[in-house]
Amino acid sequence: MQTHEIKVLAKIQTDFREKFGIPRQSGLVESLRARIVFEPEFRNPDALRGIEGFSHLWLIWQFSLAVRSEWSPTVRPPRLGGNTRLGVFATRSPFRPNPLGLSCVRLDEVCEDSTLGPVLVVSGADLLDGTPIYDIKPYLPYADCHPEAVGGFAADAPEKHLHVVISEALIDRIPPEKRPALLDVLSLDPRPSYHNDPSRIYGMRFADMEVRFTVTDGVLTVTELSTDL
Amino acid sequence: MQTHEIKVLAKIQTDFREKFGIPRQSGLVESLRARIVFEPEFRNPDALRGIEGFSHLWLIWQFSLAVRSEWSPTVRPPRLGGNTRLGVFATRSPFRPNPLGLSCVRLDEVCEDSTLGPVLVVSGADLLDGTPIYDIKPYLPYADCHPEAVGGFAADAPEKHLHVVISEALIDRIPPEKRPALLDVLSLDPRPSYHNDPSRIYGMRFADMEVRFTVTDGVLTVTELSTDL
Repeated sequence: MQTHEIKVLAKIQTDFREKFGIPRQSGLVESLRARIVFEPEFRNPDALRGIEGFSHLWLIWQFSLAVRSEWSPTVRPPRLGGNTRLGVFATRSPFRPNPLGLSCVRLDEVCEDSTLGPVLVVSGADLLDGTPIYDIKPYLPYADCHPEAVGGFAADAPEKHLHVVISEALIDRIPPEKRPALLDVLSLDPRPSYHNDPSRIYGMRFADMEVRFTVTDGVLTVTELSTDL
Repeated sequence: MQTHEIKVLAKIQTDFREKFGIPRQSGLVESLRARIVFEPEFRNPDALRGIEGFSHLWLIWQFSLAVRSEWSPTVRPPRLGGNTRLGVFATRSPFRPNPLGLSCVRLDEVCEDSTLGPVLVVSGADLLDGTPIYDIKPYLPYADCHPEAVGGFAADAPEKHLHVVISEALIDRIPPEKRPALLDVLSLDPRPSYHNDPSRIYGMRFADMEVRFTVTDGVLTVTELSTDL
């Protein structure tokens, strides 16, 4: 088997410290902010010259929790309930022969950090904190945008379909700049799609918080929120 | 520097035997047909189950002619005339720290070849014949299509702006199924964008043909076409 070597150019800093809760595609939660920090060898502001002319970027990255030496030709997409097997190349599953991810993010800002060098601030990323980035490319609408495309079993975006209930006391513990993103992530229903147990208490880490919640009849109730991680 | 290993899953068969003439993004010449043939280890029809439900696919691939051990933070995009330097991450240049290409192609057909196994027939590919493919993913309109995106210096598609003149005798030598693609490739102006020399005769290989042409005042004239390669 032929193999090639690729370099880790950067790592992304996001609020997702674990897989649970990460939206299943980029752009579903626009309020999620992330920072792309280059590895020391690639901290060169010249490499970003002109990038601020683009509103969206592609990231090619490693599904770091899905690195395996073996591969399976089929996977069970969560949105089909987890029981239907599809070919891995007909899905965006992380469990692929090469664990490559592809995400479109919005470019919010290019800033210069005195110790980390140039940093890209982006939104909408569906990446785990610390994910290695292999490439960053500008989104070119004329080549990348295909409104006529037929999206198979994943034609429509997953709806934000849960109503989120959270007490004022708990919401006060969420840093204001994290509130929209956390509430949107919860409303997308972070549970595995084949779960439906009203008595179960789920736990999710987000930024420096641990969030606990239950889900009954389309309502997600936040029962606990600790910030002492 | 951290590096990872990725596998070559497939190779693409296209009509481009050399870099000259390849459109600068995918989808610019829809009539270009190509075949994706899997490497022996990945010849498994199960891995494609359900893929025919999608009209478009992403290919992540290697710019095989742009593999370098060094990288340059800036490049000179041809569509800016070749004199303006931009950061490599603000362009889709092949000369990137990791020579990864990203192309959206239309899926025309999934067929089973008795010796090569499952083959994907696609159109619109901007890849050199024999290019190694690292990943194939379905195009998801809800996540990948951003009509609102701002495309910086490359906001508009390069126009098919040359009028192609070719004698009947020469056109008869082109296999009928290759005619639309070859004529579209020529009309896109395969010359390096800073060239403008009416006396120069350019040569381009396409499929099993060698095409010679001149360009004067927006008219490309095919002067020779040999099929005996």
